[in-house]
Amino acid sequence: MTKYVYDFAEGGRDLKDLLGGKGGNLAEMANLGLPVPPGFTITTDACRAYLRTGREPFGLADEIALHLEGLQRQAGRRLGDPADPLLVSVRSGAKFSMPGMMETILNVGLTDATVGGLAARARDERFAWDSYRRLIQMFGKTVRGMPGEVFEDALREAKTRAGTADDTGLDAAALRGLVQRYKDIFTAHTGEEFPQDAREQLDQAVRAVFDSWNAERAVLYRRQEHIPDSLGTAVNVVAMVFGNLGADSGTGVAFTRDPATGERGVYGDYLANAQGEDVVAGIRNTTPLQELEQRDKASYDELLNIMATLEEHYKDLCDIEFTIERGKLWMLQTRVGKRTAAAAFVIAGHLVDEGIIDLDEALTRVNGSQLAQLMFPAFDLSRGARPVAAGVPASPGAAVGAAVFDAHLAAEADTPVILVRRETNPDDLPGMIAARGILTSHGGKTSHAAVVARGMGKPCVCGADAIDVDLHKRQFTVDGHVVSEGDVISIDGTTGRVYLGQVPVQPSPAVRYFEGTLSPEADPLIRAVDRLLTHADKRRRLAVRANADTAEDAARARRFGAQGIGLCRTEHMFLGDRRTLVERLILARTPEQRDAALAELLPLQRDDFTGLFREMAGLPVTVRLIDPPLHEFLPPLEDLAVRVARAEERGEDPGHDRELLDAVHRMHEENPMLGLRGVRLGLVIPGLFAMQVRAVAEAAAQVPGARAEIMVPLVGAVQELEAVRDEAQRLLREIGVDARIGTMIEVPRAALTAGEIARAADFFSFGTNDLTQMGWGFSRDDVEGAFFTRYLELGIFGVSPFESIDRDGVGRLIRIAVAEGRAARPDLHIGVCGEHGGDPASIRFFHDAGLDYVSCSPFRVPVARLEAGRSAVSATGSDTR
Amino acid sequence: MTKYVYDFAEGGRDLKDLLGGKGGNLAEMANLGLPVPPGFTITTDACRAYLRTGREPFGLADEIALHLEGLQRQAGRRLGDPADPLLVSVRSGAKFSMPGMMETILNVGLTDATVGGLAARARDERFAWDSYRRLIQMFGKTVRGMPGEVFEDALREAKTRAGTADDTGLDAAALRGLVQRYKDIFTAHTGEEFPQDAREQLDQAVRAVFDSWNAERAVLYRRQEHIPDSLGTAVNVVAMVFGNLGADSGTGVAFTRDPATGERGVYGDYLANAQGEDVVAGIRNTTPLQELEQRDKASYDELLNIMATLEEHYKDLCDIEFTIERGKLWMLQTRVGKRTAAAAFVIAGHLVDEGIIDLDEALTRVNGSQLAQLMFPAFDLSRGARPVAAGVPASPGAAVGAAVFDAHLAAEADTPVILVRRETNPDDLPGMIAARGILTSHGGKTSHAAVVARGMGKPCVCGADAIDVDLHKRQFTVDGHVVSEGDVISIDGTTGRVYLGQVPVQPSPAVRYFEGTLSPEADPLIRAVDRLLTHADKRRRLAVRANADTAEDAARARRFGAQGIGLCRTEHMFLGDRRTLVERLILARTPEQRDAALAELLPLQRDDFTGLFREMAGLPVTVRLIDPPLHEFLPPLEDLAVRVARAEERGEDPGHDRELLDAVHRMHEENPMLGLRGVRLGLVIPGLFAMQVRAVAEAAAQVPGARAEIMVPLVGAVQELEAVRDEAQRLLREIGVDARIGTMIEVPRAALTAGEIARAADFFSFGTNDLTQMGWGFSRDDVEGAFFTRYLELGIFGVSPFESIDRDGVGRLIRIAVAEGRAARPDLHIGVCGEHGGDPASIRFFHDAGLDYVSCSPFRVPVARLEAGRSAVSATGSDTR
Repeated sequence: MTKYVYDFAEGGRDLKDLLGGKGGNLAEMANLGLPVPPGFTITTDACRAYLRTGREPFGLADEIALHLEGLQRQAGRRLGDPADPLLVSVRSGAKFSMPGMMETILNVGLTDATVGGLAARARDERFAWDSYRRLIQMFGKTVRGMPGEVFEDALREAKTRAGTADDTGLDAAALRGLVQRYKDIFTAHTGEEFPQDAREQLDQAVRAVFDSWNAERAVLYRRQEHIPDSLGTAVNVVAMVFGNLGADSGTGVAFTRDPATGERGVYGDYLANAQGEDVVAGIRNTTPLQELEQRDKASYDELLNIMATLEEHYKDLCDIEFTIERGKLWMLQTRVGKRTAAAAFVIAGHLVDEGIIDLDEALTRVNGSQLAQLMFPAFDLSRGARPVAAGVPASPGAAVGAAVFDAHLAAEADTPVILVRRETNPDDLPGMIAARGILTSHGGKTSHAAVVARGMGKPCVCGADAIDVDLHKRQFTVDGHVVSEGDVISIDGTTGRVYLGQVPVQPSPAVRYFEGTLSPEADPLIRAVDRLLTHADKRRRLAVRANADTAEDAARARRFGAQGIGLCRTEHMFLGDRRTLVERLILARTPEQRDAALAELLPLQRDDFTGLFREMAGLPVTVRLIDPPLHEFLPPLEDLAVRVARAEERGEDPGHDRELLDAVHRMHEENPMLGLRGVRLGLVIPGLFAMQVRAVAEAAAQVPGARAEIMVPLVGAVQELEAVRDEAQRLLREIGVDARIGTMIEVPRAALTAGEIARAADFFSFGTNDLTQMGWGFSRDDVEGAFFTRYLELGIFGVSPFESIDRDGVGRLIRIAVAEGRAARPDLHIGVCGEHGGDPASIRFFHDAGLDYVSCSPFRVPVARLEAGRSAVSATGSDTR
Repeated sequence: MTKYVYDFAEGGRDLKDLLGGKGGNLAEMANLGLPVPPGFTITTDACRAYLRTGREPFGLADEIALHLEGLQRQAGRRLGDPADPLLVSVRSGAKFSMPGMMETILNVGLTDATVGGLAARARDERFAWDSYRRLIQMFGKTVRGMPGEVFEDALREAKTRAGTADDTGLDAAALRGLVQRYKDIFTAHTGEEFPQDAREQLDQAVRAVFDSWNAERAVLYRRQEHIPDSLGTAVNVVAMVFGNLGADSGTGVAFTRDPATGERGVYGDYLANAQGEDVVAGIRNTTPLQELEQRDKASYDELLNIMATLEEHYKDLCDIEFTIERGKLWMLQTRVGKRTAAAAFVIAGHLVDEGIIDLDEALTRVNGSQLAQLMFPAFDLSRGARPVAAGVPASPGAAVGAAVFDAHLAAEADTPVILVRRETNPDDLPGMIAARGILTSHGGKTSHAAVVARGMGKPCVCGADAIDVDLHKRQFTVDGHVVSEGDVISIDGTTGRVYLGQVPVQPSPAVRYFEGTLSPEADPLIRAVDRLLTHADKRRRLAVRANADTAEDAARARRFGAQGIGLCRTEHMFLGDRRTLVERLILARTPEQRDAALAELLPLQRDDFTGLFREMAGLPVTVRLIDPPLHEFLPPLEDLAVRVARAEERGEDPGHDRELLDAVHRMHEENPMLGLRGVRLGLVIPGLFAMQVRAVAEAAAQVPGARAEIMVPLVGAVQELEAVRDEAQRLLREIGVDARIGTMIEVPRAALTAGEIARAADFFSFGTNDLTQMGWGFSRDDVEGAFFTRYLELGIFGVSPFESIDRDGVGRLIRIAVAEGRAARPDLHIGVCGEHGGDPASIRFFHDAGLDYVSCSPFRVPVARLEAGRSAVSATGSDTR
């Protein structure tokens, strides 16, 4: 039979799946001999069974009774005993922390019959009635779903009657009266008496905690945090201890190190004569933990000892909650503590210095997302800029610009702008693309603005509800200020803060370090980053390359640690002035005209490649032959059609526009993503690929140490690759240059026939963007704004598959291609050059899938190095949550 | 060691892979004791080894020598013997017949030294020198690649000198002189003497046959016929026999039944005192085979006996080639004979009647492509219409219309037109879509016109080079006639024939039979079709449904044997007058406006479904919820933009056009195929799917025997399906109707996660069109004209993957989905409703893959029934070539 209840003595942190984080850690502390109030944990199994069937599983009631016996024995009190009643807290505790999302009921066990016993034991009648009042209120709201206001109103009335503005102004008699009023309210709302059976209170409270797993806010939170709905919550039943029994009582929270900077020392807050909920409510100001030393040295020393024990045991920063009841210290909770990105690095470094963990372990204590955070530029707040509002930090980075309230205006602005809207919708896309940052007064992390901005890597603050946007007047008001269109504002997508005026932006120290302008010795954070990256480089199996199309990008990528270029997009070399050459290529009416246009492009491309090879001398440079449809180099159809129509209406000759319009019509595609592009272009337009291969080969011949790789895009069948490869090899031989020839795997069919394709490929490089687009059948440009918000809300995605690789679908294609490509050709070199190459969770997948390298944007190279190292030292599965 | 040479006694028709069709059948005849000249076959293995390495494989020369010994022993003559020389023919013979594509060299063994021996033996000096002359000519052309004209010119000169217009006017002396002249020409061209060593002649001839496998015309032919390049050809070396040794000699061809109609009887042609090549050259008129009876009764009777033996042995129509040398009959070739589509059915029926084969075997003797041919309307030629030209029959069917030489004009014509071009290109697409048929003077089966027309199912005749197209004058001339733009012509894409004026079109008897207006008794062909289809229905495991959107289509489908509707495209119900309702839905600015538009659509859809359910009472009707992006119902962007711009230039108010243009801009997608469509629409537009489900349910509730199935398009993740399914099930319960709910599998990810998706699906239906588009990453609309021609030329496809399922890529997705869907849900019902559902080769694949049904257009239902039956009775693998 399934065991549904664990005493603390039976549990431990390894059982988090079953006991939740809180329950596992309480058991861990109990087993370390630390002073934990007696209690037990009801498992997530029980919760799942309850949620599945709608009732407690068979046997649970008996098990609770059994463990309650044990608890009563340890506590030396019994639930419902009028003379000396045991009170318990009933708290949720899921595997992953969901702060504030779920339910807690305190003081369970107080009834008309037991309130006197508590008063006698506490020698404090007011305290007993206040505790009873709190129980009824919490129970009514949480267990019976009553609106909170009805209790608040009664409390306010009682205070008015007593002539006090503060809860503490109510004496025992007033509180007794309030308890009666609360019970009446309870009966009026539920049609039942407030339960006077302590066990009945307990059972209802447990059920309420189970139910709270599916409360709307909890469901939404899980979706945002990618926590599976299937986990369920555990329930902790713990003997109550009280920090509000006088001056020798109190409650506090503490960290074993500074969670903001990672520095060593004791950090915490203490509040005398209070319960934990008072700290949360912020009614009174806390004092620094150190003051406890004066007040109660014995408890303080014991606490410091316990913190040392916990650090030694958990080998990491811990945060704890404790209560002192009349001079007796009780530990109520501990866990490995949250920390800032900077602190994570510093602490990991310190723990190594202190000999507590080794470097491998240290790598698992930081992650790529944290490193990425450290690389965003941040506001220089040293001159005291103060935020006027705070919203959801939806997409990190700092942005400064003129507030603009209209997307069209934003799209046309030629100075930096911040697009400000109540919320955004697909119509705003052009403005979002043009803006430096986006600020909305509505919506959260999955709102349209947030999703789109993250996709663009653009700073975004969402749901800053202190901001009152008036689109009509084109202004917003905040905190008494009026910000009109054109006024400069600054937004911090990392912290969610909004500033008036221009806050100076400072480059991140991490970037200065990578750029070589900041030495690791100068800064403890940078020292830690340097040390962990160096170790990651030593351990990782994945090589890290960069996607770069210019010599400048290549140089930066190399400074950031790239081991080559995994993707040079040659079509980027066809923009700007060279567009007219491409136009001539497209408009060519004879082979001679076409060849002439190609001949003019040749030296330009050759020079581009020469620059790349120079910067990357000694390292591989993968050149992708031209990919996009050629009509992308022509003006948009609608613009041309309108220009021609207008000219004709005016009786003018549209001239060249007419010729261009004809060409655009001729080449028009309904779905250019699925049209004449990539290898298809190369097979249909004679000389195009040959020109590019010649440019690569001639450039490589000029640069010592050049290591060219030629990559064919959009291959779906081995015959396509063979045709291009044959021609390329002839050219390479002619020029006397050696180069590997490989293919993108970005069409699903390429993955499905990878065994065949490997016969003609020296390497594979996954194009995960196209693979995602074709695997799911949606184009990134078209859908992110149109329905991803809705899909995230519906939980169809936990995260956009363009941000993080879709393991089940697209990932399966990758695994098939790796397995069958390698089976056909064991020395096949395999990498990825889609945008996922810089995403931490995806990098772990690529490591697990057995790839040889990832390639990402230069700025993401350090992140990829770190994640590749982390993947190598820790077991399969993502722990980047 | 590999055996490279087989005596006829060692071979047989089962060894076709190794010995080719001709060699296998010669061995078969030899082993039946029929009079076959002695000979041996060099295997395709030897050819492949030669082509791979460029030289004869080790051991081949010795093996040939050994078998030549045997041949000489059987023939009683020796190669190169001056007294009585053995002559041999050297002929190619691949696994699949490639008529006229490859090489033959006759009379190998004639030299200056042996020509006299042949003259003596034949008692005919002229014959011997003529044979020698022919050898040099064939050898020079075939083995040494000399131009044919040089020999033709010398022959003409000799005839002029002799004062004769005919070869036969040359006497022995003239021919001896001509041999000398030929040898001089040979030496002048090759720098070598004509080989005087008979074995050397043989070896060079064998090599030439090997090489001919890779001749350009052979390569092209194989691509068109989808014959793998890797097969190689065998080479048959056979003792020469002569039909030109006098009146008691001759040569002929015969069929054991009429290959045009399938009727019983002996059909053939005979030419006295001639070799087979004379028959081919058509120099003299052949006589009906029956006349041989008068001339040489013994040989005639022997031939009839042999034909009976062959029919009994092959259990099918055979065609044969024979030669009579001075009263002695020799069998030179036999094979199962080609026949028309009609003959295939009639013969299969007769063979069953005659007890030669059973009905299962009969099913394998016909195929779906043949049945499809019988269903095309054909010209009624009874009134004697005579073709003026013939071209490549590129896409079957009969079409009549006014000749139009300009695609734009064709696109705008409101009477039936035939588009006439030298060749077509993507610019002509609008005209091709509008035309009834397409006629070109250039290009073959893989030309742009042919590929596109076949894709559209539209009659097309290509490469009718007797037609001289003058685009400038907008006319063509043929056979002295001038056809100007607007003149009516008729083209037959089944035969390739072109007629002037309007040839009456008659519906096919097969269609009249399916429509119930022609009884099987009336026509032997229809009797055979009826019998074989009835048997196919009995044997097939695949059910056959139809794709139908209207009650009329549904009724026709049922008459054609459909067992339900596998795909009703509900968006087709939104066209015509209803377009304005969809426009209102799109332009709705409030939920109320949107709901009002939906409410007006509801009764219209309900009535549509009611009609379908009535026609299909008792059979399942699968309704697909709306699939295409809504903006497809709005006017095209360019039209609107131009209208608005023109109005503005004129100073007018664009009015509603402006509103529409705004909507089109708002909803514009770069790649609508990959945009907001299918299930995504249903999840984003509240009430849209609900309206459709309600219409289905209310209609089903009204019609007795209605069996509704609801199908969700474009699902890529199980969560999408679950969301739609939950809402649909609520509605169905509310209305009290039972319906299965399933999903299209048309997005690659759906196939890759089919195990998950099956949890929420009662059935799967593969949408192979989208699956092909997304699996390959090309959109059918955009690419068929743009690069498929080139891809077919390059051999990247044997056939367009939109015509016949791509087994390796798309097919693999299907197999994965079937296996994993069934593993998750054993009772999952699985079908296909893409256009491949009516393609013979694809149907066999679907059978093999374990599907439950195929759904295709009503006209294809009989084809699908036949192919499904064929698939059930014969082993895996396509024999539809």
